[in-house]
Parts: sequence; C-alpha cells; structure tokens
Amino acid sequence: MFYKELSEKVFSNERRKVARAISIVEDYNSDASELLKQIHSRVGKAYRIGITGPPGAGKSTITNQLTKLFRQEGKKVGIIAVDPTSPFTGGALLGDRIRMNEIGNDEGVFIRSMATRGSLGGLSRKAIDAADVLDAAGYDYIILETVGVGQSELDIVQAADTTIVVLVPESGDSVQAMKAGLMEIADFFILNKSDRPGADQAVASLQTILMMKDHDEKSWMPGIIKTIASENKSMNEVLLEIERHKKFMNDQNLFLAKRENQTKNRIKEIVENKIKEELWSESGEKSLNSALEKVILGNLSPYHIAEEIIENFISKKIYK
Amino acid sequence: MFYKELSEKVFSNERRKVARAISIVEDYNSDASELLKQIHSRVGKAYRIGITGPPGAGKSTITNQLTKLFRQEGKKVGIIAVDPTSPFTGGALLGDRIRMNEIGNDEGVFIRSMATRGSLGGLSRKAIDAADVLDAAGYDYIILETVGVGQSELDIVQAADTTIVVLVPESGDSVQAMKAGLMEIADFFILNKSDRPGADQAVASLQTILMMKDHDEKSWMPGIIKTIASENKSMNEVLLEIERHKKFMNDQNLFLAKRENQTKNRIKEIVENKIKEELWSESGEKSLNSALEKVILGNLSPYHIAEEIIENFISKKIYK
Repeated sequence: MFYKELSEKVFSNERRKVARAISIVEDYNSDASELLKQIHSRVGKAYRIGITGPPGAGKSTITNQLTKLFRQEGKKVGIIAVDPTSPFTGGALLGDRIRMNEIGNDEGVFIRSMATRGSLGGLSRKAIDAADVLDAAGYDYIILETVGVGQSELDIVQAADTTIVVLVPESGDSVQAMKAGLMEIADFFILNKSDRPGADQAVASLQTILMMKDHDEKSWMPGIIKTIASENKSMNEVLLEIERHKKFMNDQNLFLAKRENQTKNRIKEIVENKIKEELWSESGEKSLNSALEKVILGNLSPYHIAEEIIENFISKKIYK
Repeated sequence: MFYKELSEKVFSNERRKVARAISIVEDYNSDASELLKQIHSRVGKAYRIGITGPPGAGKSTITNQLTKLFRQEGKKVGIIAVDPTSPFTGGALLGDRIRMNEIGNDEGVFIRSMATRGSLGGLSRKAIDAADVLDAAGYDYIILETVGVGQSELDIVQAADTTIVVLVPESGDSVQAMKAGLMEIADFFILNKSDRPGADQAVASLQTILMMKDHDEKSWMPGIIKTIASENKSMNEVLLEIERHKKFMNDQNLFLAKRENQTKNRIKEIVENKIKEELWSESGEKSLNSALEKVILGNLSPYHIAEEIIENFISKKIYK
C-alpha cells in the first residue's frame, strides 16, 4: 500500500517524502483523502500559529524571527506560507528568498509556499491539510502565514491555535474599517515597524476598537506588541504573548472547544468541496450549459434550473 | 396565488410591494425562489452598474451624482448599497443619510441598503436577487454599490454590465498589491478626490498596471477618470465612459457572453447554497456533532466523516 508506506515515512520525517505528501495534498484528488486518512492518528500534537495582516507588514520577517527563537529552544518548526499572486503580475514570492538564506538550510525547519494563482478555491483546505502533514511529521510548531485579504485566508489562520494579526503604523484608520474581519480573529496584535511615525496612535486606536468589544474580567484581552522584527526587537515579547494565550486557553479549558469547532468547519468544507467537484464535473458543466439558454430566453429562472440540477445530481447518485 | 399577485405589483412598480419583494428575497426561504421564478420573465432590461472600492473613496457620493445625471435623462434608478458592518461597531450606514436628503424623496429612485452583519454568506445572492426585483419593476439603471473587501463583494459587482472601481490618491501602492482582485474586475477606474496630492502619480501607477495586462488593439482598455464627486466635477465623463464600455460590449457582441457567464455563476451559487442549507439543517448539524468525537479521538479522519455525511445525505434524499 503506497499510502501506508508514504505515511510511515512522513511519521519519521523524511524530508523528501514530507514534501511529496504535501504535493499530493496540494494536487488534491482521491489520493489526498487516502493519505490524510492514513496520517490522521498522528495529527494533533503540533501547536499552530496563524500570522496574517496586510502586505508589507513584515509577516515573513516575523515568521523568520519566531522560527529562530523556537529553534533556540530545540523545537522543530514547519511553515506554510500562502502568497496571493495576481494573474497580472505572476507574483514573486519575495519572502521565500529571505527565508531560504536565513533558516532554509536548517534541518529542523520545513518551509512550504502555496500560491493562490488567482482562484482562492480550496486554498484553505490545502493549507490546513499541509499543516496536518507537518503535524504528523513531528514538527512542534506550525506557522501558517498568509496575507489577510479574503475569506479563504481568514479560514486558514482560524485553523490555528493562536492567531496573530500584524499591522504597521500606516495601516491606521483604513484597517479599522476594511479589515473588520482581521480585528475579530486576532488573539493578539503585533504592531511591526513600530519605530515609524504614528505607532503610538495606531496602538491607541487598536485599543479603542478592542475596548468596544463585549468583554468582562474573565474574557481574553488581546495584547498589542510593538516590534521591529527586522532588528529582532521585542520578538521575545511575542513569544511570551503566545505563551500567555496558550495558558489562558488551557486554564479555561477552551482548547478542546476551539479544536472541535475547527474540525467541524473543516468537515463542512470537505463535504462542500467534494459535492461541488461532483456537481461541476465535466458532465455537470455540460448540462448546466445546455440549461443556460432557457434562462437567457426567459423561459425558466435560475431557480428553476437550480432545482433541476439538484434533482438530477441526487438521482444519478442513486443508480450508479 | 400570493406570489403572482405580488409580482404583478412589482411589475407596476408599487413602491411598498417592491420593498416587500426585496425583503422576501433578503429573508430567503422557499418563498424567495417562488417569487424569483414569477418575476423572471421581466428581468433583463435594466443596465447594471457595479461600483466598488475601499472605504472612504466616495462611492456613495458618486452613486448619488450618477443617479442625478440619469434622472436628468428621465431614467429610473434602483440602488442596492451593500455596507459591510463589523459585529464590533454595529455599523452606521453613513452613506444612506446623505442619500436620503438628496435623492431619497425622488419617486424615480429606489434605494435599498443591505448590511453584511458579520457573515458574508449568501450576500451576493441576495444583492443580485434584489437587483432582479428592481429590474422587473422597470428601473432603467441599477447601481450595485459595495465596499471591495471580500470575494462575496467582488461577486456582486461582477454581476454588473459595467463595473467601476473607485480609488483615491491615497490608495496608491497598497491597493496595487492588496486589491489585486479589484484591478481585474474594473471595466474602468474613477480616481476620486483627485484634487488631493498624489493624484497624477496614482493615475500613472494604475496605467502601468493596466499595461502589464495582456492586450491588443481589439481588447477593451479601461479608462481612468479623475473626479471630485463632492463638487460634481467630471461626473459627465463617468457617464461617457459607461457609454463607451456599453458600446464596446455591444459592438463586439460581448454582452450575451457576459450575461451567460453571470447566469451560469449564479445558478451554481444557488445550487450550492441550496445543498448547503439542506446539508447543515438541524438534523445535519446534529449528526455532524455526533461524528466530531470520533475525529477528536483520532479514530477517524475528517475525510472519513465527510464521506459518511455525503452518503447519508444522498440516501436520505432518495427515500423521502
């Protein structure tokens, strides 16, 4: 059994096999499900850290510095970096080049980049599945790093145990409004490049937003850490804040609930993706195309066609 | 038949019934499908304009000014304004107050606001369905206005015949990277508040990005219109650019293909939403919850559970 063998090699952290396993997960077909079923029993030991924020906030640098600190403690670190690339520009993975120089040659570090290539579909599933592979391979910490743009990327960091939102002084006002989603998922904030003008103001406005949130003395209050990651300033405080959050979650018995909720969302996503794939397979697209004309001519509404498609889908599944 | 009567009243543009119809569409249950089926034959005459861009770019003001210009031509205008509201702040619909003073009392204008209330799920469907109601009610132009944040909001403006992306000089660099999605959906750009410093630079960098796109002399080249909407400056140029795009699409016979593609995406979304609703109904959530424990304990992977759920879903549909 190919997948049994491969998963054994993942368990013993053979680098090339781990890379191969992630590729299978990225390509995603029935093979991926098989592999993920095989490794499942070994998944769940790693501590997952999500890092997100606007482009240019310094997420890669922070990931690098955190990785070095974890390595000093003798911990192994897996990194999944999700880089959105525009179909316009092709998208250069700048962060990678820096990383390769600094930590890329360390045997205790595994780095994998994933590009969105225009479509965001299934990306969060891929990233989370890849984290499972690294988890099964015995990495102690898994960092999921992504630009905070779309829902899919928010899904990725929400699969983490601790989610860090990185901002810079310039993010200021616009972030408040635009990135409402980011504000709500942060377990704590890093204000990076905090030697730039406006840093204290940015911290103050963040604090204002946080105070508006319903909270009492028992609820978790996200900290705001001012760093200059490129000079390795205050990175230890970041570690401490991760520890503080971990301890809080443990003390309040919240981890289990969080992971349960994550697993639930994940199962839902897998189910929905599988159904979508089958719905819009070649034959599904074909019957959709032939139904289109009826809608365009005004004979039938999209809602009529939708019902037809669902009925067809289910009845086909019965007789096959 | 309630829906037949209601749709007749929508066709004759009875304001309160139009509002009622949109509420049904917003609430979304089997009633909504019935209503949308009833009105479908009258849908398709309106010209749909999508307006998106970062918060504070002046989208509401532009919508107002465009509406006034259309009204001068004797055209009726329907407006669907999608405002993202954070669960933190509750979200004040600032644009609405301005609108109510200026155009809200005009019988030839229908304004509807939709709030995202945290979750973006189904919002694009609701907004597009509401546009159908206004279309059936005989509005000549329908403006879909939304803040360009997530995929769902991109979906909304992509349901338009002409999509306008509004930027301001300050958007500058960050927009390029972050809003890659916005760059690709724009049929043309408005650089609003163009009396502010950096306007020419912003135009130049937009042009650079546009030139990077594959194009030949036959392809559509999005214009960039500098406006000061609050002073009604260059709003006529915006109208002309809409006309230029409309003419181009007509001349190249591209409208039919665009609408076909939109209808296709819409049917897919309806199908997927309907299936999701049935999957995660009360009983579906219940069986998901009971399956969770097996995953947490490591006995079964999320992929195992997902397959179980799909099988159950389909076999239940057979015997009912």
